[in-house]
Amino acid sequence: MASSAVSLTEKLGLFTEHWSPKIVARMNEHHFKLVKMQGESVWHSHAETDEVFLVLNGMLRIAFRESEVKFSQGEMLVRPKGVENKPSARDECHVLLVERMGTINTGDAAESRLAAGEGEWL
Amino acid sequence: MASSAVSLTEKLGLFTEHWSPKIVARMNEHHFKLVKMQGESVWHSHAETDEVFLVLNGMLRIAFRESEVKFSQGEMLVRPKGVENKPSARDECHVLLVERMGTINTGDAAESRLAAGEGEWL
Repeated sequence: MASSAVSLTEKLGLFTEHWSPKIVARMNEHHFKLVKMQGESVWHSHAETDEVFLVLNGMLRIAFRESEVKFSQGEMLVRPKGVENKPSARDECHVLLVERMGTINTGDAAESRLAAGEGEWL
Repeated sequence: MASSAVSLTEKLGLFTEHWSPKIVARMNEHHFKLVKMQGESVWHSHAETDEVFLVLNGMLRIAFRESEVKFSQGEMLVRPKGVENKPSARDECHVLLVERMGTINTGDAAESRLAAGEGEWL
């Protein structure tokens, strides 16, 4: 049997928290997650997975140690595994993340203002 | 170093062919591909990979042997590995595909009206 379609717009209407990934689909050994971002995340990296950020609404900045990428609705970025970075958004921004199952949002950050976790199914 | 952002809108402006996947990003062992669909594909399945269809513009139908899923902009579907299916679109539809590297668009179809291939980098 086939899965049914997932409406990203509908799912985005089901939560309001920032920096709290919600899993909406599984493909092979990867999860697709929705995240609302506003303000700053923390410096971190993920040793085990590349990570895709696809912006659905708003504008996202990802700081790297020597550069910064700023991108908007309809643009995507692959953050390579092991690269230190810090996402931030001045205004609320909605993002579709794709990453290996088991990936923790704050990666290797030793401590964090943010709740650390893989995210729950929405 | 970080990659730069990929504009899906800009990439969609670079080709017109239907059923001819264009690779726009790599994440872990997967490719992100853009495809323009109009008319009917062929019945096929992929034994080795689930496949994500995220509709960027228009409406896509995916027929399975015992059901059909119809979905539009902002909706996504995971087509599980090994499940026979046939995508189609009455009007032109733009789709972001995610699948394991090396996946051939026509899967296990013995013969096909469509050019078979993994797709080229755009």
